[in-house]
Amino acid sequence: MSRTHDAAPRQTSSPGLESFLADYRPGWTLSGRFFTDPAIYQLDLDRIWKQGWLFAGHICEIPKAGDYFVLNMDKESVIVIRDDEGRVRALHNVCRHRGSLLCDQPEGHAPRLVCPYHQWTYRPNGDLIACRGMQEDLDKSQFHLLPVAVEEVSGLIYLSFAESPLPFAPARDQWEPLARPQGFERARVAKVADYVVRANWKLVWENNRECYHCNLNHPQYIKANFDHYNADDTTPQLRDRMTTASVELESKWAAAGIAPRSETGMTPFPDADRNIWYSANRTPLVEGYVSETMDGRAVAPLMGDYPDPDVGTLRMRSLPNFWNHSSCDHGVSTRLLPLGPEQTAIRVWWLVADHAVEGRDYDLSKLLPFWQLTSEQDWEICERQQRGVQSSAYRPGPYSTTKEYNVDAFVRWYLKKLKA
Amino acid sequence: MSRTHDAAPRQTSSPGLESFLADYRPGWTLSGRFFTDPAIYQLDLDRIWKQGWLFAGHICEIPKAGDYFVLNMDKESVIVIRDDEGRVRALHNVCRHRGSLLCDQPEGHAPRLVCPYHQWTYRPNGDLIACRGMQEDLDKSQFHLLPVAVEEVSGLIYLSFAESPLPFAPARDQWEPLARPQGFERARVAKVADYVVRANWKLVWENNRECYHCNLNHPQYIKANFDHYNADDTTPQLRDRMTTASVELESKWAAAGIAPRSETGMTPFPDADRNIWYSANRTPLVEGYVSETMDGRAVAPLMGDYPDPDVGTLRMRSLPNFWNHSSCDHGVSTRLLPLGPEQTAIRVWWLVADHAVEGRDYDLSKLLPFWQLTSEQDWEICERQQRGVQSSAYRPGPYSTTKEYNVDAFVRWYLKKLKA
Amino acid sequence: MSRTHDAAPRQTSSPGLESFLADYRPGWTLSGRFFTDPAIYQLDLDRIWKQGWLFAGHICEIPKAGDYFVLNMDKESVIVIRDDEGRVRALHNVCRHRGSLLCDQPEGHAPRLVCPYHQWTYRPNGDLIACRGMQEDLDKSQFHLLPVAVEEVSGLIYLSFAESPLPFAPARDQWEPLARPQGFERARVAKVADYVVRANWKLVWENNRECYHCNLNHPQYIKANFDHYNADDTTPQLRDRMTTASVELESKWAAAGIAPRSETGMTPFPDADRNIWYSANRTPLVEGYVSETMDGRAVAPLMGDYPDPDVGTLRMRSLPNFWNHSSCDHGVSTRLLPLGPEQTAIRVWWLVADHAVEGRDYDLSKLLPFWQLTSEQDWEICERQQRGVQSSAYRPGPYSTTKEYNVDAFVRWYLKKLKA
Repeated sequence: MSRTHDAAPRQTSSPGLESFLADYRPGWTLSGRFFTDPAIYQLDLDRIWKQGWLFAGHICEIPKAGDYFVLNMDKESVIVIRDDEGRVRALHNVCRHRGSLLCDQPEGHAPRLVCPYHQWTYRPNGDLIACRGMQEDLDKSQFHLLPVAVEEVSGLIYLSFAESPLPFAPARDQWEPLARPQGFERARVAKVADYVVRANWKLVWENNRECYHCNLNHPQYIKANFDHYNADDTTPQLRDRMTTASVELESKWAAAGIAPRSETGMTPFPDADRNIWYSANRTPLVEGYVSETMDGRAVAPLMGDYPDPDVGTLRMRSLPNFWNHSSCDHGVSTRLLPLGPEQTAIRVWWLVADHAVEGRDYDLSKLLPFWQLTSEQDWEICERQQRGVQSSAYRPGPYSTTKEYNVDAFVRWYLKKLKA
Repeated sequence: MSRTHDAAPRQTSSPGLESFLADYRPGWTLSGRFFTDPAIYQLDLDRIWKQGWLFAGHICEIPKAGDYFVLNMDKESVIVIRDDEGRVRALHNVCRHRGSLLCDQPEGHAPRLVCPYHQWTYRPNGDLIACRGMQEDLDKSQFHLLPVAVEEVSGLIYLSFAESPLPFAPARDQWEPLARPQGFERARVAKVADYVVRANWKLVWENNRECYHCNLNHPQYIKANFDHYNADDTTPQLRDRMTTASVELESKWAAAGIAPRSETGMTPFPDADRNIWYSANRTPLVEGYVSETMDGRAVAPLMGDYPDPDVGTLRMRSLPNFWNHSSCDHGVSTRLLPLGPEQTAIRVWWLVADHAVEGRDYDLSKLLPFWQLTSEQDWEICERQQRGVQSSAYRPGPYSTTKEYNVDAFVRWYLKKLKA
Repeated sequence: MSRTHDAAPRQTSSPGLESFLADYRPGWTLSGRFFTDPAIYQLDLDRIWKQGWLFAGHICEIPKAGDYFVLNMDKESVIVIRDDEGRVRALHNVCRHRGSLLCDQPEGHAPRLVCPYHQWTYRPNGDLIACRGMQEDLDKSQFHLLPVAVEEVSGLIYLSFAESPLPFAPARDQWEPLARPQGFERARVAKVADYVVRANWKLVWENNRECYHCNLNHPQYIKANFDHYNADDTTPQLRDRMTTASVELESKWAAAGIAPRSETGMTPFPDADRNIWYSANRTPLVEGYVSETMDGRAVAPLMGDYPDPDVGTLRMRSLPNFWNHSSCDHGVSTRLLPLGPEQTAIRVWWLVADHAVEGRDYDLSKLLPFWQLTSEQDWEICERQQRGVQSSAYRPGPYSTTKEYNVDAFVRWYLKKLKA
């Protein structure tokens, strides 16, 4: 179909992309246009955001048939709803009559989706079941709500705007055994925080893909984690310390059946050559920490199937829009959605066990600070970088081969997708 | 002239329009670009807003020579002023010296228009009469303010940016006898409300051209009016009820000499085939209502020449920017002006007889709610629709042949103008 | 280099400029596009703002090594800093690693410029001296901060983005003897006011280049100054009065060695034929005034080398972004920076002798009003004009040959630069 209102084919033609890439140098940062140009932004939407799998939210947010939430991305609006059979559906939030939004609240409960304009009425699976006032011969089967592909893995909901989405099974196969014991499908959302970050989404990812910046920017994070130690920083003593922590935990986890795979330090991700857009691992926290909290102590009851607090952190990430760090007692999900060349909408969720009661079992003032501080420190970094790369004096610079190999891996993955 | 600063001829060329119309299907809604694309917006300005007759305001707002108000449309600013001979003039609000705005207040009194920059001074008819400091040989006759065509009908002021405006006489001939008894030229403005509605102006019209949406969206309006009853809704009993109301009133009005023409239900309008951009009729209110108010009772003294309250409602509308509903005791005018592809400035006036005194003869808390509620209900609908038609998932949908024939008529009129 | 992110070569091609100039008529104002069109704005940036010398700030704002302030222009950000050897440097505020802004505060003290992202560290002269975490073989000499040309004259700092800047010496040679006695390098900034004026920068200059508008718009200014009297206004008596004032002062100043050059009325400036973008003169105030203040009395201690208050006013101006009026006791600098086709950032500084102490030697309530009122009166004028020239009804108008010759001179200078 050629009727999307902002397809702008001329702007996104290959010649344009080639000119943007003329001065690209492997191992160096992208040129400034990639973070500011509307044509590149449109390419990003078309070839990455509308082709890949996007994290949308959590199963536990829509427990009953008719429960829904709305996801807005750029000009798109999608209703994620549990249907009458209990399946999760994703439907474009656009009435087939005259195009009104069906749901203008961010979340709610709707046994039937009734358009507020003329009351065309749809089932949660998208079927049109009533359109009072229309001609008798109107064939309702031609007017179901347009669907968006949807998948679930361990309580996480993903959607894809692609007509032929990438296979989701490899991600599910890898994540299921790692994420199952966390019990996300039996979680409660303790808090959601929404941010509008004035930076291109790629700068947010580049920031996420290295801990070179952690030492001075994330005083809380580095107390809990090993991953700011890279190859060139690790003394033999430190390496011993990390190995010891890993070996001990791995055997313990293996005995408990909860952890097939552990890595210390920064996990290599993504992998452009093998088209790997998802990754998960479980890794030790530093000695004395059982949770990513200000003092390392647990701040909520154990989640899921965990037998004791000593489970390190589960980490998951998927391109282009998700990461999660989970400790024994809580999990934190982060979702990115592009708002324009220079803006990204970011939502952060804090999840606890569904039986946990605020005030009795957990306290937001202890649950939130670790990731609230760490996240907001990063958003500030990204906004400062966005302002710099706009300058005519910005020149691509070299990545550290020991500390920024994953940023380079991200750029390579990105460019491969963009050229696809 | 080719010097308008945003003529952008490439964007508004016919090839562009053809591509926008490639998937147009008669009887169905327009594609999303018509409500979002800057090139279409420019076409709308050039071929509709700058060619047609625009309602500007009421004669009673500028009773004395030198009284003026300013109308801003897109980048244009126009002074509507009563000149020394008592004629209403419309003049571009732009000094001929260095282009400063002459009047930066929305309304006022100016026996002479004096530019605040260097005091070039104009008569209210636009003649330059003083420009102290300029060379002696400057020919003042070459520097009158640029005029805008202006017409009046029954106390309503219209203007046209066109060099050769459409004939106005047919509209005046139709409206005069219907509107004269309302006495707009002897009215008082009781209240003005200004809105910025985040929707394309065409969505506002599409909303205006059907009452399919009234039942659930306009609980106040439908209590007073018959026009949500369309062909398919009317039972024989209801049809009898409407006919009875009409016949009774028509003979009564004919006796009083005030109503040449009555229609119940939605008036067919506009008429693309006959190029009809104006329409007026008088129609009964439901039994027990003498005014479009919350309880149907009059809330102000009789206006104009009305002998008693039983005059139904006078309704007028003209494309692209005006409608008015008037009862025996008050009239409500609505004016649209485009602010961009996705924004429309809307002003609503409430008028009463000029001898009415607030607090004694009328009370705003009783005068305003009926149309304030109904208007704001519609703006909310339009904004929701605007958000939906931006989606790549928006697909043109079918109009109801029994309830949305006037929306389809609007679209046909619009496309005919656009292609002209 | 072709990698600036918004080079947009098609928009700024000569054919475009020619079409903009098609209806230009010498001695008349520019057409509306020059004040609204993004393509013209880009040309203005490329050919004027990035080619000329821009006033940045005052030497006295950065007295010690490591003191800095940041200047933002359009997408550019520049650090103006005093280096370890005491020289003033201007450096692009963009880290050579990943492009982050180095300084995000408007001013401060930084013995070393440390990037907040990964702590790459630079000397105030721009040399990269540390980049912990990078590969060993990285050649630091290839990653100095990109420099911006910088010059000083009598305590004023200028910078140029040009690769081969215009010669600065002629400006320095003319200004030095005139400005030296004012002692700007030994001044204190008593106050800074920042404005965002919704007008194209050229309208601000056109306003500056005539006093035709002064009589009604600047009641304070005209009490202190002669320059609203132009050729056609001066009666023989007035001319005698001005000549007397000049002759007396010139001989007095010559004796004191402080004033090589005096002009009354508006100084002819700029001079397109001779490419003169800078100008300074000293001129008498009206009888009874020794300072540009509300009542003409000095409001602070004598500045610089002045032997007594009777020094008239020193006036300097340079295109495209600076003017200064200085009296015996204080100086007022104004700096323009473009923010877009329809917005200009303006900063106004009030300077006094560095030994003056607020509350004891001067009082802001007496120091500020004269130029605060005069400046804000002008910004309001410019914003009104900007709104007018956007109209399709704006037509170029004629300049007064007796009162607006300098505005015409500005336009001729501007067009010569634009075509260069």
